[in-house]
Amino acid sequence: MASMSTVFPKPTTFLSQPLAKSHKSDFATASVSFPSNSRSRSLRSLKVRAALIEPDGGKLVELVVPEPRRREKKHEAADLPRVKLTAVGLQWMHVLSEGWASPLRGFMRESEFLQTLHFNSLRLDDGSVVNMSVPIVLAIDDEQKALIGESKRVALVDSDDNPIAILSDIEIYKHPKEERIARTWGTTAPGLPYAEEAITNAGNWLIGGDLEVLEPVKYNDGLDRFRFSPSELRSELERRGADAVFAFQLRNPVHNGHALLMTDTRRRLLEMGYKNPILLLHPLGGFTKADDVPLSWRMKQHEKVLEDGVLDPETTVVSIFPSPMLYAGPTEVQWHAKARINAGANFYIVGRDPAGMGHPVEKRDLYDADHGKKVLSMAPGLERLNILPFRVAAYDKTQGKMAFFDPSRAQDFLFISGTKMRGLAKNKESPPDGFMCPGGWKVLVDYYDSLSVTGSTRLPEKVPV
Amino acid sequence: MASMSTVFPKPTTFLSQPLAKSHKSDFATASVSFPSNSRSRSLRSLKVRAALIEPDGGKLVELVVPEPRRREKKHEAADLPRVKLTAVGLQWMHVLSEGWASPLRGFMRESEFLQTLHFNSLRLDDGSVVNMSVPIVLAIDDEQKALIGESKRVALVDSDDNPIAILSDIEIYKHPKEERIARTWGTTAPGLPYAEEAITNAGNWLIGGDLEVLEPVKYNDGLDRFRFSPSELRSELERRGADAVFAFQLRNPVHNGHALLMTDTRRRLLEMGYKNPILLLHPLGGFTKADDVPLSWRMKQHEKVLEDGVLDPETTVVSIFPSPMLYAGPTEVQWHAKARINAGANFYIVGRDPAGMGHPVEKRDLYDADHGKKVLSMAPGLERLNILPFRVAAYDKTQGKMAFFDPSRAQDFLFISGTKMRGLAKNKESPPDGFMCPGGWKVLVDYYDSLSVTGSTRLPEKVPV
Repeated sequence: MASMSTVFPKPTTFLSQPLAKSHKSDFATASVSFPSNSRSRSLRSLKVRAALIEPDGGKLVELVVPEPRRREKKHEAADLPRVKLTAVGLQWMHVLSEGWASPLRGFMRESEFLQTLHFNSLRLDDGSVVNMSVPIVLAIDDEQKALIGESKRVALVDSDDNPIAILSDIEIYKHPKEERIARTWGTTAPGLPYAEEAITNAGNWLIGGDLEVLEPVKYNDGLDRFRFSPSELRSELERRGADAVFAFQLRNPVHNGHALLMTDTRRRLLEMGYKNPILLLHPLGGFTKADDVPLSWRMKQHEKVLEDGVLDPETTVVSIFPSPMLYAGPTEVQWHAKARINAGANFYIVGRDPAGMGHPVEKRDLYDADHGKKVLSMAPGLERLNILPFRVAAYDKTQGKMAFFDPSRAQDFLFISGTKMRGLAKNKESPPDGFMCPGGWKVLVDYYDSLSVTGSTRLPEKVPV
Repeated sequence: MASMSTVFPKPTTFLSQPLAKSHKSDFATASVSFPSNSRSRSLRSLKVRAALIEPDGGKLVELVVPEPRRREKKHEAADLPRVKLTAVGLQWMHVLSEGWASPLRGFMRESEFLQTLHFNSLRLDDGSVVNMSVPIVLAIDDEQKALIGESKRVALVDSDDNPIAILSDIEIYKHPKEERIARTWGTTAPGLPYAEEAITNAGNWLIGGDLEVLEPVKYNDGLDRFRFSPSELRSELERRGADAVFAFQLRNPVHNGHALLMTDTRRRLLEMGYKNPILLLHPLGGFTKADDVPLSWRMKQHEKVLEDGVLDPETTVVSIFPSPMLYAGPTEVQWHAKARINAGANFYIVGRDPAGMGHPVEKRDLYDADHGKKVLSMAPGLERLNILPFRVAAYDKTQGKMAFFDPSRAQDFLFISGTKMRGLAKNKESPPDGFMCPGGWKVLVDYYDSLSVTGSTRLPEKVPV
């Protein structure tokens, strides 16, 4: 584990740093041109800057009550009508509290909800537009609505009924579930994992308002040390002197094709004139569907991959992105990208069929594999972000390693899909040498092994030591 | 019919005028303030200008081949692969050809289609944004796609196989029907009239490209004299010296509540400092659902209403809007508004549940009645348009006429819904005096009478003389 302290920022050192404010730097700028397959509008004469990209809305929103006022706020919360958060509700509260959704200051009111559904963006008071593609809303049922009555504030409480936040200046409005699902996923077919988890059986009302969270959100699952807020990430990226930050969203085990892609992206950024590009390797930490590999096992796998030196610890920051997963394809990839701007990323790597899945009832993918990157490249409010389309990597049988696919010698390549990878690991078979580092592969095999022992389709999140 | 010549611009005189170019005027401007229930961002210190609002994209797109080149183009079209237009396809070609969808220059290519579905807007090359909320696309099936082969151009042909347009620099891409329906209507329930007419059974491919239409579109249904293009309307509005143009979209018979609203809007505009506000009374002329009153009967009813002097011919222009009707609520109302900008309207009246209908399978309205005006007021690309929310009119029993609803004496008012109105007309009953002018009501009664005679649920469009 020796290398871990350089790869994963040491929690004790890192978290004790004061939160840095984003600031404009006076560092020298230099014009560079960009390879041809990126979108032209933002990159034709890119200026290389050392300052991190500004958060959406200009200022990172942070909604955790500062220490001196917590006691008072907790006292206030105790007397308010209560709304109990689900696991997904808590994850969104976490997301909001740290400013991943800046400039949102709480669960959406109706005007924000409607703009999100129809325009995937929000217009701010100054007329500028920020991207916002997925509804961040809180559902309540008729009974909760009646309990709230005329109150303009509510306390949000955890599963043990402890108040953990206050929502103020609330607005309660109808929850148009069918329309929300149709406009977010482009289908209303039964079997969408997020819809079944968080919408279909949720209440008929939505409650929006200004959020104040009483304590920083912790899950006490052994993984909090990997959960850094946008503000903490910005501090770390500034400490490292990053002049370009490229984010990689993932919810799957890392194989050498991913590693190749990330290494190659860094090489391209260096060629563009950046001096110190930093990779933000950013696995999603919230709700995922039942057949995805759980977060704890994925983090263990990521650690092994980094220990094995597949990625350079000096230029990689690993952190958990606290959002739930919607599997909403072109709509969701915008959220994944936008949230990373708020964490300081100005480059975003997008692959084939991002945030996609199979159609829940038809034998086809839910989304066209190219729509994600096309929609992302045209999305309102993301003009500042440089989109880096994923080059397809596959196993090159002639080299015995993962390489960028060369269509002129297609027969030399082997595509190993996620389904195939999971199948091999379940059967304790080995993938070809060079597909994934052995330590990382073993974690996967152990995970499926643990499933077959318990007979469960999904283990609890805790990883055996 | 004496008054008709002033109300409906005389076709012979009107159409022979040269097409006016939109131009900036040097007329004096004056600051005024606006009543409180309109959106503040555009109206706080409105400048009253005599020039018409600019079309989207700055220049009205017109895609009818100029006379000197028609012969040559027809010759070219004869040799191209052919795509047959449906009735709805022809209506959209008409819409495109006259620039209602400016700056669109043809059926959408995939990048335009995706932006429409996800963002309800298009980003232009100069970075500006125009509204575009409904897909204007042309579907083809596998067989047609195979016939087109590698050709970069196709001829669009009418039901008699006559070439009527050329589509150039074509792009063929997948037609994601379910996703298109879900993102446009917010539901995929069976029974959406437009989806059943034009999507569900349409081909699995969409073909986009640059459109050239070989002749101005005519329907030869006796109503072409009411069909004016945006360019023709702009000429007429300029001829009349309009310094404000307020558009009223309708697909139903006009009753006195509508008339009150339009008269009152003119009064408000005069109060704001406009000298010559003109009403664009703009019934929709394309596809409508089976139980709507057909266009020919509606036009006959509108004529009667105008003859009866309910609206002032001097300040009213009546014309047919050639678009099909989607019944897509908040998504469609943006299209209705945007198209009228291109015809010169800078004020748009929006009512309760615009472009709405009942849910096709559930016992409720498909859309929240307030979402249309909310979405319209926030829509990207419509910032230049002044949205005038509809004040609810109802039959005031104490006055014996239609009046703005006064909630403080709700018991005095009678709401006569479209369903109720149709029911009365079907049964040859009379509505209360003052609900609709007698001549207009008689047209409605005659329409339903004609239905019961033929036993049809819908008459052919032709009106008996």
